[in-house]
Amino acid sequence: MNLIDELKTILTSDRVSTNENVLAQHSTDESYHTPHLPDVVVFPENTQEVSQVMKLANANGVPVVSYGLGTSLEGNVIPYEAGIMIDYSLMNNVLEVRPEDFLVKVQPGVTRTQLEKELKKYGLFFSVDPGADATLGGMTATNASGTTSVKYGTMRDQVRDLEVVLADGTIIHTGNMAAKSSSGYHLNGLFVGSEGTLGSFTELTFKVYGIPEHTMAGRAAFDTVDDAVDAVISILQAGIPVARVELVDEHSMKQINIFSDTDYKEVPTLFLEFHGNEAGLQQDVEFTKEIISDNNCQELAFESDTAGRNRLWEARHNAAYAFLHGNPGKKQMVTDVCLPISELAGAIKDGREAVEASGLVGGIVGHVGDGNYHILLMIDVNEPADIVKATEVNERIVDYALARGGTCTGEHGVGVGKQKYQEKEHGEALNVMRKIKAVLDPKGLLNPGKVID
Amino acid sequence: MNLIDELKTILTSDRVSTNENVLAQHSTDESYHTPHLPDVVVFPENTQEVSQVMKLANANGVPVVSYGLGTSLEGNVIPYEAGIMIDYSLMNNVLEVRPEDFLVKVQPGVTRTQLEKELKKYGLFFSVDPGADATLGGMTATNASGTTSVKYGTMRDQVRDLEVVLADGTIIHTGNMAAKSSSGYHLNGLFVGSEGTLGSFTELTFKVYGIPEHTMAGRAAFDTVDDAVDAVISILQAGIPVARVELVDEHSMKQINIFSDTDYKEVPTLFLEFHGNEAGLQQDVEFTKEIISDNNCQELAFESDTAGRNRLWEARHNAAYAFLHGNPGKKQMVTDVCLPISELAGAIKDGREAVEASGLVGGIVGHVGDGNYHILLMIDVNEPADIVKATEVNERIVDYALARGGTCTGEHGVGVGKQKYQEKEHGEALNVMRKIKAVLDPKGLLNPGKVID
Repeated sequence: MNLIDELKTILTSDRVSTNENVLAQHSTDESYHTPHLPDVVVFPENTQEVSQVMKLANANGVPVVSYGLGTSLEGNVIPYEAGIMIDYSLMNNVLEVRPEDFLVKVQPGVTRTQLEKELKKYGLFFSVDPGADATLGGMTATNASGTTSVKYGTMRDQVRDLEVVLADGTIIHTGNMAAKSSSGYHLNGLFVGSEGTLGSFTELTFKVYGIPEHTMAGRAAFDTVDDAVDAVISILQAGIPVARVELVDEHSMKQINIFSDTDYKEVPTLFLEFHGNEAGLQQDVEFTKEIISDNNCQELAFESDTAGRNRLWEARHNAAYAFLHGNPGKKQMVTDVCLPISELAGAIKDGREAVEASGLVGGIVGHVGDGNYHILLMIDVNEPADIVKATEVNERIVDYALARGGTCTGEHGVGVGKQKYQEKEHGEALNVMRKIKAVLDPKGLLNPGKVID
Repeated sequence: MNLIDELKTILTSDRVSTNENVLAQHSTDESYHTPHLPDVVVFPENTQEVSQVMKLANANGVPVVSYGLGTSLEGNVIPYEAGIMIDYSLMNNVLEVRPEDFLVKVQPGVTRTQLEKELKKYGLFFSVDPGADATLGGMTATNASGTTSVKYGTMRDQVRDLEVVLADGTIIHTGNMAAKSSSGYHLNGLFVGSEGTLGSFTELTFKVYGIPEHTMAGRAAFDTVDDAVDAVISILQAGIPVARVELVDEHSMKQINIFSDTDYKEVPTLFLEFHGNEAGLQQDVEFTKEIISDNNCQELAFESDTAGRNRLWEARHNAAYAFLHGNPGKKQMVTDVCLPISELAGAIKDGREAVEASGLVGGIVGHVGDGNYHILLMIDVNEPADIVKATEVNERIVDYALARGGTCTGEHGVGVGKQKYQEKEHGEALNVMRKIKAVLDPKGLLNPGKVID
């Protein structure tokens, strides 16, 4: 019996696909990386099926890649060694909400907006917002974060427990439902961000938050990126618990205006949001206004109603799509360095110079409260020179970040795109990672070629 | 050349001790566990010396235990297989404070109060307060937490980077100075809480916070533990960002009054603290008062001045010492389960029943915002029956917690005392931990017999 037939005995045959279109859909992500077809895509409905698929793959030495919605940006899910692709779209139930415990348990195929909708019924929200409507499984696999991480942290900070199917089909739980634990080694943290290279997630338990009593959002336009970053440092120094603070440079503001039909000033801009009780929030906002005014702010506009806030954040989140829309036929290389915030203004200045020198079109957006910024570099993937230029920009800014205590990827993960920087970033620690990979996936079948070479 | 002589070639001979008193000082911690002498205690001054000691130990198959101040509560640092004890008291410098980046880099022997003093100069504070004036190295090794974790998290949440000397002497860095990263596997999280079984920390970089603009603390006396826990759940549900919320039961209040010369009501009491801006804090406190009044509060007293607040927290932190003082000649077995908060009231009730049934003296204190509580059980270590009874209480409450999604240790670590619960708590995941231990410490020389059997 061949592998496909064996898979059909584990799952029903309609959930094992070698259809060309299905394979093509699972050959790529949202990045510029070259696609590659899997041999077969399976759609499990429960943990036991995933475990049996893993056992079969392990017995036959076949690679296995886990797939959410393919919104990754570093080729994280592209199956370069083919094999079995586990698509989690049929495992998309919110299994349990425990409002008293501020916990939710989901299957990996649940999307962020789907979870939001469910949690809203309980007055709760999930804090990580990477922009894309990714699956929770995928977001956990890359340790995704985004605009709200400055206050609420990354995916890793939300994970209480993962049910994981290991390479040999064994099912483990990496944590528990308690708010903290000093028991055993911290497997939660290890599996979060492991990009399917150590196991595949089948159930995920997250910490959630009560919807804040009050929310205010605003936009502050500055003369220069330096002024904007200085304002952010002053806001953080003042201890103001800002919930989002995003930098959008003048080039990105221009694309946003075209795409979102807004008429924002086309200068370096901060998008801000505050969560809290009414009195405290008012005081935070007043203090922030003072700080911003002291940093050469040209214009400051706050939105207190939901519609205005939503418009603002939709515009910000559409920055990447705005560039794609404004450059038809091109793809994006999105850089992702993160540095100590004192080094951020210098890093962005150097990044902008690198873009100018390359001649490529590129905008800068940043989760500045975390010291994380992205250059949205537009490239023609059929034009080798474009890829060379974009790669040079990426290398320059990664080197800049690593020399200053930063990281090559703040939130997109390693995939294939950031693998060449792993040795430089981690040094001897990379050998520790290699040893962990080797002992948990001795045949190297789980998402081979990703994270660890 | 024997081992001692070889150590003297690595360190100066005055920093290699086999003095009986020195060995005895390093044979125990603050727990009831049986002491055991190391063969030799070394006092390194830098990372290179630690690395050379490790290489020597590795070459000779000699166990190595890392030692801070011996404040652990589960025998975590007792060298049951003798060997070399690395005492970090000479590596006690605060190496760098980066106020703009909210970072501090310290050596492992720096104590919490020493760090506090240094950070205060910059308007910053370190958020983890386990009560004891432990070293930062030790606190990291056990993933310590305490009264403020409900708002600021545990040690693991503060660690940005660790310099670690591995079993073979290799020096690695587990992280970087960026606020977040998705690069490689998350070694920070893995090494935090590993209790010296995977490596020894020689430099630690932590996240720190600005000292809050305003702080208020208070005490609320209730009729029953249930009422107190219900009040906490309501406070959290309301989204009030309480900075500390501690339960002290009537038995502990009585001991506190005797020890601290206070005249607090001897009923279940919450100790609370709030951090924020003036307006927001005022609103939080008012809302909290309403909630507390709705939960059968007998008495509510807030302290707005520093002296009053310090008196309050000193009283709370001295609860364990108060019991020791009130029971001369006895030692303490301190339990440490942590559960989802919805299960906490039931757990404490069951815990109290277990204490009554045992006939032992014991008070309950809890970091209730985290679902973590301790029973301070007084035992005569020379009385085998006492140990049996206390162990039975501990087993009963651990079983209760594990059956409800909790953990056997919220903050004290596994050491030797919680090892027997690891299989039950982690199941198949324990094998993953064993594999990681085996691959990073193949000879089993690092703090042998701890965490992983």
